[in-house]
Amino acid sequence: MSSPRSSSCCPSSRSTSPSGSPRTPPPAAASEPYPGGAVGRAPPPGVVFDCGVRQNKPPDDPLAALLDRVRVRLRDLTDGEPASYIPELSRADPDLFGLSLCALDGQVYSCGDCDVPFTVQSVSKPFVFALALADRGLEDVLARVGAEPSGEGFSSIRLEPGTGRPPNPMVNAGAIVTSSLVAGASAEERFTRILAGLSAFAGRDLTVDGAVFASERSTGDRNRALAYLMHNAGSLTGDVEEQLATYFRQCSVLVTCDDLAVMHATLAGGGTNPLTGERVVAPRNAQHVLAVMATCGMYDASGQWMLRVGLPAKSGVSGGIGVALPGQFGIGVFSPPLDEKGNSVRAIAACHLLSEQFGLHLMRATGSSVRPLPPRSLDPGPLRSLRHRPRDQRAALDERPDRIRVHVLQGDLDFATAEQTLRAARDLPQAAGWFVLDLARVGRIEPVAADLLRALGHDLRERGIRMVIADPSTRPVTHTDDEFADLGSAVESCEDELLTSLGLDPAAPVPLTRSDLFGKAGDAAASAVSDCFGTLSLPAGRTVEPPRAEPVVLWYVESGRLAVCAHGSRAAPPGRTWSAGPGAALTPADFHARLGQRVLAEEDSVCRTLTAAGLLRLRAAVPAAAAFLERSPLDGAETVDRPEGA
Amino acid sequence: MSSPRSSSCCPSSRSTSPSGSPRTPPPAAASEPYPGGAVGRAPPPGVVFDCGVRQNKPPDDPLAALLDRVRVRLRDLTDGEPASYIPELSRADPDLFGLSLCALDGQVYSCGDCDVPFTVQSVSKPFVFALALADRGLEDVLARVGAEPSGEGFSSIRLEPGTGRPPNPMVNAGAIVTSSLVAGASAEERFTRILAGLSAFAGRDLTVDGAVFASERSTGDRNRALAYLMHNAGSLTGDVEEQLATYFRQCSVLVTCDDLAVMHATLAGGGTNPLTGERVVAPRNAQHVLAVMATCGMYDASGQWMLRVGLPAKSGVSGGIGVALPGQFGIGVFSPPLDEKGNSVRAIAACHLLSEQFGLHLMRATGSSVRPLPPRSLDPGPLRSLRHRPRDQRAALDERPDRIRVHVLQGDLDFATAEQTLRAARDLPQAAGWFVLDLARVGRIEPVAADLLRALGHDLRERGIRMVIADPSTRPVTHTDDEFADLGSAVESCEDELLTSLGLDPAAPVPLTRSDLFGKAGDAAASAVSDCFGTLSLPAGRTVEPPRAEPVVLWYVESGRLAVCAHGSRAAPPGRTWSAGPGAALTPADFHARLGQRVLAEEDSVCRTLTAAGLLRLRAAVPAAAAFLERSPLDGAETVDRPEGA
Repeated sequence: MSSPRSSSCCPSSRSTSPSGSPRTPPPAAASEPYPGGAVGRAPPPGVVFDCGVRQNKPPDDPLAALLDRVRVRLRDLTDGEPASYIPELSRADPDLFGLSLCALDGQVYSCGDCDVPFTVQSVSKPFVFALALADRGLEDVLARVGAEPSGEGFSSIRLEPGTGRPPNPMVNAGAIVTSSLVAGASAEERFTRILAGLSAFAGRDLTVDGAVFASERSTGDRNRALAYLMHNAGSLTGDVEEQLATYFRQCSVLVTCDDLAVMHATLAGGGTNPLTGERVVAPRNAQHVLAVMATCGMYDASGQWMLRVGLPAKSGVSGGIGVALPGQFGIGVFSPPLDEKGNSVRAIAACHLLSEQFGLHLMRATGSSVRPLPPRSLDPGPLRSLRHRPRDQRAALDERPDRIRVHVLQGDLDFATAEQTLRAARDLPQAAGWFVLDLARVGRIEPVAADLLRALGHDLRERGIRMVIADPSTRPVTHTDDEFADLGSAVESCEDELLTSLGLDPAAPVPLTRSDLFGKAGDAAASAVSDCFGTLSLPAGRTVEPPRAEPVVLWYVESGRLAVCAHGSRAAPPGRTWSAGPGAALTPADFHARLGQRVLAEEDSVCRTLTAAGLLRLRAAVPAAAAFLERSPLDGAETVDRPEGA
Repeated sequence: MSSPRSSSCCPSSRSTSPSGSPRTPPPAAASEPYPGGAVGRAPPPGVVFDCGVRQNKPPDDPLAALLDRVRVRLRDLTDGEPASYIPELSRADPDLFGLSLCALDGQVYSCGDCDVPFTVQSVSKPFVFALALADRGLEDVLARVGAEPSGEGFSSIRLEPGTGRPPNPMVNAGAIVTSSLVAGASAEERFTRILAGLSAFAGRDLTVDGAVFASERSTGDRNRALAYLMHNAGSLTGDVEEQLATYFRQCSVLVTCDDLAVMHATLAGGGTNPLTGERVVAPRNAQHVLAVMATCGMYDASGQWMLRVGLPAKSGVSGGIGVALPGQFGIGVFSPPLDEKGNSVRAIAACHLLSEQFGLHLMRATGSSVRPLPPRSLDPGPLRSLRHRPRDQRAALDERPDRIRVHVLQGDLDFATAEQTLRAARDLPQAAGWFVLDLARVGRIEPVAADLLRALGHDLRERGIRMVIADPSTRPVTHTDDEFADLGSAVESCEDELLTSLGLDPAAPVPLTRSDLFGKAGDAAASAVSDCFGTLSLPAGRTVEPPRAEPVVLWYVESGRLAVCAHGSRAAPPGRTWSAGPGAALTPADFHARLGQRVLAEEDSVCRTLTAAGLLRLRAAVPAAAAFLERSPLDGAETVDRPEGA
């Protein structure tokens, strides 16, 4: 027998296949469907179950190393004994100890004995509860089993007065009922569904340990008593022995520590298996299962568990514990010796250490003060896009700095960030007509934040203010037309609207002869100036190539629009930097290879071009115009700010 | 009597003062410390308690409007009756209904009857538990009261066999014990501490309703029985009647719905009051209180509550419910009519609606698939800073594209993002010597992520790779010297190290005569070329101003370093864009007002400057050199890529 993943201390990228069995299951379980005594069987001499630890070589991945540090620190914790109430379990090797973590994209980090098969026992309960929820719906299931912590141990016999319902699906009585609620016309069909469901959670075909099943069935007096009590109370229906057999078989399914991590990652990810991509249950089902695990998963230690560890978890009598951090990952821990409450001593300790060291407690306040950059409005002064515009339009925008406001957000967009944005919107100047939200630096957007932004957009519309979103991702935020791929386009759009409202047409062609490139000097000799320029027609979508043969020193946009786009392979992500509309000029600097830029005609455009030779002709023909142009040849915009003739 | 915050439908920015009483308390409570029957007293005719609702005017803030929509939808829910077991409570106005939300920066959103005082009752329990934890520590408190849900109602009489401990601090028995554990030499001192503590949580001075106190004391048979049972079992010490009086007085403290929101925001924010900034208890205390609220806060409905609402909460018999979302906000709801379990009917319904509509359930999986941009390595091709370098150094960097890798992160940095970064680091090319992490677009950094990045840095160091952080915020991430304010500086630093390791000195001066500006044409006539340039010495920190009188067409850096910094008032946040070291050239385009840039000498630098007149002299003196320069006058870097003479 050899381990299929002997390098288990390193993260293993498991390949997935549509056949549903992405991983080779441990050979013992695969070749012998009911391998008596597989649980806790010590590895044959010479077989390496994990590359690093038995050879005292640290794992070569930092995350696996962090996990392994926890494992090594707790390895010598020798309290407790393997479960004794099922004879097969009492023979487990007390030295076995594995720790696995599965991220939501299916990456599994393992250390220690993560490939050793053991029976899943009570760790099956949340998953069968999930299947029952998927098959019957929450209300139907809750009519038969409660969702309240009982304050008692796993074999609690307390049933709800009146209804006879067991308190919750995490104690044995409740789990027997939930097993009976899984879809299927017969006990055999129900178990087929359960085994297929557990396999879907694990991302590989699981099998049953026949010896443990036989042992549980012959010694399960307490569970048998519970089942008959519930049958008497009416909360368990059907053939009692058949329902019990289904439950005992469910508990005898063989899993590994890695399986537990994957199964809990499936819950943490909203019901979709991160290895296979299969949607095993709906997000709502997974949410409800985690909630019940949070209050009832650790039996009569559930309160202490939430207090000290703060994560939904489920333990089993074979020594396994599974933990899920919603939206983040699943953890599996396996070590057979149990404490007096029936929980694995080392696994409990490992969960405490991981929660503490990694700051995973669900009730931990990560205050918004941790944010490096609070949402901020760009202020003060005129907020302008990087669109080149003719002089009169620039002046019109400069005179109205309060009309368009930009608000920049960074980090994940949760309630707090959205609420601060609402406040910024409330403090908008009286004159504001456009409110631009820059989401380029925002990560995930929580539904509550999207709701609030939508409400804000609606509210602002009623105040006569248009809210515009700039977001390079394709996610819809407000589901309106007011979403742009970048801040520049968003602000340009607002400026265009503002200019239009002032009677200025931002798209109207501006012939060279009416440009502000030459100051007053050009007015008198418009035709002579124009003769020095060439004409270039660019269809929409064309990239503008500066000609090498005869260098162009100036591109003037008469109509249409050019955009300067940053190249994506340098330090800045790709994107549109700024644009030039009618009346704007570009220089060779705008084609700067240094900044990885390229210039693109966004619309059908007409450019007037000035070559070096043309410039010489201009100097000769209209010296004053050439002088004006050359004094600030590289930035048409600057001429606005400079007193003419300076 | 007039309402101090009559515009309570709009968010109220409460001012804070060091005197500890930032808000004017409701006049009734302020002027009459023990105003009999204040609870539920109907407002005098004509008094407007909230601006919007009674006049059917929608609130003018989108968040308050969302809250108000919930309130209006549930206003007509008329099930239930005000509490009857305390005579004073049974007289409450059943129509009262308020809803408040307090964000972690102290902004309060209210709608409905949020200023009406009522007695806090059981909602005091988590806060007094917090004070006991602060005064005694977790272990001492847990020795006297458990942390397990009891599966029974608020007046559960079940005590732990053996210890006699009440099950948890949220049921009456447990709360009587926690009240007795607050620091103080006498009952009077303990109550003084409790009242001051509750006031600190609320951010204003609270008072006691004397009539309710008297009523509770004279009718609290069940609580009296509990106290004597616990005294008999040894879990309650001291004078039983005194301890009971402290508890009854604690329950009779007057609060408003707004107060509940602020108190729970204090817990959600890790123990610091968002209004006053006062640290009332430690973050650990707050975390533990929220955990116990999550499993025990709603008595024998706690499991259902976690299942359906998914938030830590506490209800009181006067009709209040407080809810905390860790790290986000606190909510207060108030409506006197109770269901058969003793919880406010409308408040319960409001919490369900808010959780559902806002997606607040703690067990909801917000999968990492929601992220718009997964962490990405910039690839393929050479990764280069925007530092201008001389030709030989550029060539050396171009030949080694695999040595420096950049990894860009966006959104909040949690476990999942950090784990993906670790994976990217594992896939680094064999030749990699530097790994640059760009955190400029990262919001908050979870402790687990910082831990993982630190571990990664250590791990990479052992592999001979230097990890470098680029982060414009001042937070320390790895606590090493390898943190830079921007990506450009970070990559430059790596390039400098790489060049140094190759025997090239990136800081060594490159005299103009050894520059690559003139191709082979300059080599023969170095001195003639040099004579056409002026010399400009710039001390470190000096901003370079392009002279207006005689335009400079080229700046050449012989020694030192110039940096081009973006201006902060435009659409892009401020920051260093790129820099120019020895051997690099700048053109007027680099002083582009359009991009809001300025050029700064970062070190003592010597520039050679070419004016328009100098260029004319150069054309005359060394025509080939001038031609080479002018063919690509604006981008020295490009000359590398072009075949010479093309």
